[in-house]
Amino acid sequence: MTGMTGDLKTPALLVDESRARRNIERMAERARRAGVRLRPHMKTHDSPDVGAWFRDAGVEAITVSSLSMARSFAQAGWRDVTVAFPFNVRELDEARELASRVDLGLLVDHETPVNALAAAGIDPVRVWIKIDTGLGRAGIPWDEPDRAVSLARRIAGSRPLLLAGLLTHAGHSYRERSAAGVLRVHAESLRRMRKAKTALEDEGFDGLEISVGDTPTCSLAEDFPGAGEIRPGNFVFFDLMQLAVGSCGPEDLALALACPVAGVHPKRGEIVIYGGAIHLSKEGLVREDGSRIFGALASGGKGSLGHPDKTAPVVDLSQEHGVARVPPDRSDGLSIGDLVTVFPVHACLAANLHRGYRTLEGEALRRFERE
Amino acid sequence: MTGMTGDLKTPALLVDESRARRNIERMAERARRAGVRLRPHMKTHDSPDVGAWFRDAGVEAITVSSLSMARSFAQAGWRDVTVAFPFNVRELDEARELASRVDLGLLVDHETPVNALAAAGIDPVRVWIKIDTGLGRAGIPWDEPDRAVSLARRIAGSRPLLLAGLLTHAGHSYRERSAAGVLRVHAESLRRMRKAKTALEDEGFDGLEISVGDTPTCSLAEDFPGAGEIRPGNFVFFDLMQLAVGSCGPEDLALALACPVAGVHPKRGEIVIYGGAIHLSKEGLVREDGSRIFGALASGGKGSLGHPDKTAPVVDLSQEHGVARVPPDRSDGLSIGDLVTVFPVHACLAANLHRGYRTLEGEALRRFERE
Repeated sequence: MTGMTGDLKTPALLVDESRARRNIERMAERARRAGVRLRPHMKTHDSPDVGAWFRDAGVEAITVSSLSMARSFAQAGWRDVTVAFPFNVRELDEARELASRVDLGLLVDHETPVNALAAAGIDPVRVWIKIDTGLGRAGIPWDEPDRAVSLARRIAGSRPLLLAGLLTHAGHSYRERSAAGVLRVHAESLRRMRKAKTALEDEGFDGLEISVGDTPTCSLAEDFPGAGEIRPGNFVFFDLMQLAVGSCGPEDLALALACPVAGVHPKRGEIVIYGGAIHLSKEGLVREDGSRIFGALASGGKGSLGHPDKTAPVVDLSQEHGVARVPPDRSDGLSIGDLVTVFPVHACLAANLHRGYRTLEGEALRRFERE
Repeated sequence: MTGMTGDLKTPALLVDESRARRNIERMAERARRAGVRLRPHMKTHDSPDVGAWFRDAGVEAITVSSLSMARSFAQAGWRDVTVAFPFNVRELDEARELASRVDLGLLVDHETPVNALAAAGIDPVRVWIKIDTGLGRAGIPWDEPDRAVSLARRIAGSRPLLLAGLLTHAGHSYRERSAAGVLRVHAESLRRMRKAKTALEDEGFDGLEISVGDTPTCSLAEDFPGAGEIRPGNFVFFDLMQLAVGSCGPEDLALALACPVAGVHPKRGEIVIYGGAIHLSKEGLVREDGSRIFGALASGGKGSLGHPDKTAPVVDLSQEHGVARVPPDRSDGLSIGDLVTVFPVHACLAANLHRGYRTLEGEALRRFERE
């Protein structure tokens, strides 16, 4: 905690700008080395100010999770935007408006949105076929290539739609707890994507790209054979979940919540913080002993956010209260009204609960406002 | 789902106004019968419009969870406001400003905030001593009456502070899964509060009130022996957690998320909805088989929100996507772009993620805006 944050009155998110910029620079460098385009997911920060740091690192193409988020970033000057969510046919008007202004990419895994877009009188949009390589969420299963081929035909037969390629999110990498495990998911997912692409090529579809992206595989893999672009997002901040997966080190964590201490309970070995589910989110991390934590206090860190203190986890979280287990040597020095900082389990969800951030130097960073 | 919500484009919270008003009226009636003041917690909805429904039911005193929320409700005309969070000494200026305008109640469980308030030159404020009757979060443990007495002396000795009484939140009632269990917590918690009060009376403190409040005990108990007021909040909407505890019936659930269907996956027996952790919150409900759910689809309900469909739980939730397990007889009738409604596990946290609500009649209800 630096002096510039000592005036905070209520829970507030702090961004360690040096770490965030270093995280961005490293990912940009990794993409350059591997010869793939970095199209980072901006939903993690949803901020024009943090977005500018990506531009400083040479990024020109981005990923977002909704049409309204695409509109926000378009207004901030971004011209090449993929909305990485199966196209919501209820937003045809919004898609049409946006496609007239930016180079828009959309995802589909079914004929319904393709038909709707084809009939919409829309400017050309890049359309990606979403493939499920094992996560089991959205997408055509990788081992059902006939469905991908059939959908590709439908897209290729619709004038305003440009078949861009195949896209996946290997989010099952988050279930791994070692670099080896993540790299296994990575290799398997890419193999499945290449196989799906070959099935399309066999039917005459050329020039298709493969797009992959999740922070664990993109943080740990050195190459992306067959892929044209990567779309990680969380890496700008990282969090305790990424640390558990092995995507980052403690010195890379760039987001934490500053919380006033609301109570010190030495008998229980706990403190109560002003910082709850509406500040951190209720995302939990299951530890090896089966217990669930919702954050960890930071320690150290003159001029940086420091490191998570493994001995000081947030063990309970209600709407505004957090309860952290804190060893006596630490709680002895704490009083009501002091500030502690807490690393979230899931940075994206914590960030979504706030209207902006503050750097350790005291600068305010906005998040986009929208209805 | 009524016709008035068919035009929704993106995930939106629906409020069943008839049910919510009935929930309010019932709780008001229960309080009248029991002879206690109803001081409902407004954090659940945080809305001037829903607040007005409470006024219609004769409510004049409210509970909130932060000074900024107190300010919002004060601006909406509420004059008797308790902030049910241990007083945050970093907000002395805000407390001073608010105390000049409304009848303000604050909570303390330690000398530090009492000393800060006493030195602040503040208008008279009611001060409650927070007691921990078993939850293990904030408060002086009920079985350490000496600490309560010592704190009461400190409060009574500070001119602007009026010792109002003892306040608790028996939130451990949420861990119960039967009316009998909840009522056991209720009786035990009140017994402990009366005991703590007696300890203060033995030292000469008179006219103290007992304030209790959590939706499970307030929904199930018919009387509150020794208490002067109750402070439930969630009951205006209820949710799947309250249903599991036994606080309400399925016909009382008054809040649900309307979600566009983003994918139908009959082989998996699942649908993907546009509705994720940023719309429902990541609060989970552990079922008897140990699995965790994040919501349940509604069924039925012409002109109402219907009932939760036990056969259609939301089994996974990422940032924007939800995955619901849906039996074939239901998913067969669903197409991409249809709307489904999902009951949240925790209404307060889901509501906090939105800027407002819409009634089934299509009326917009605002939540307060604040920094």
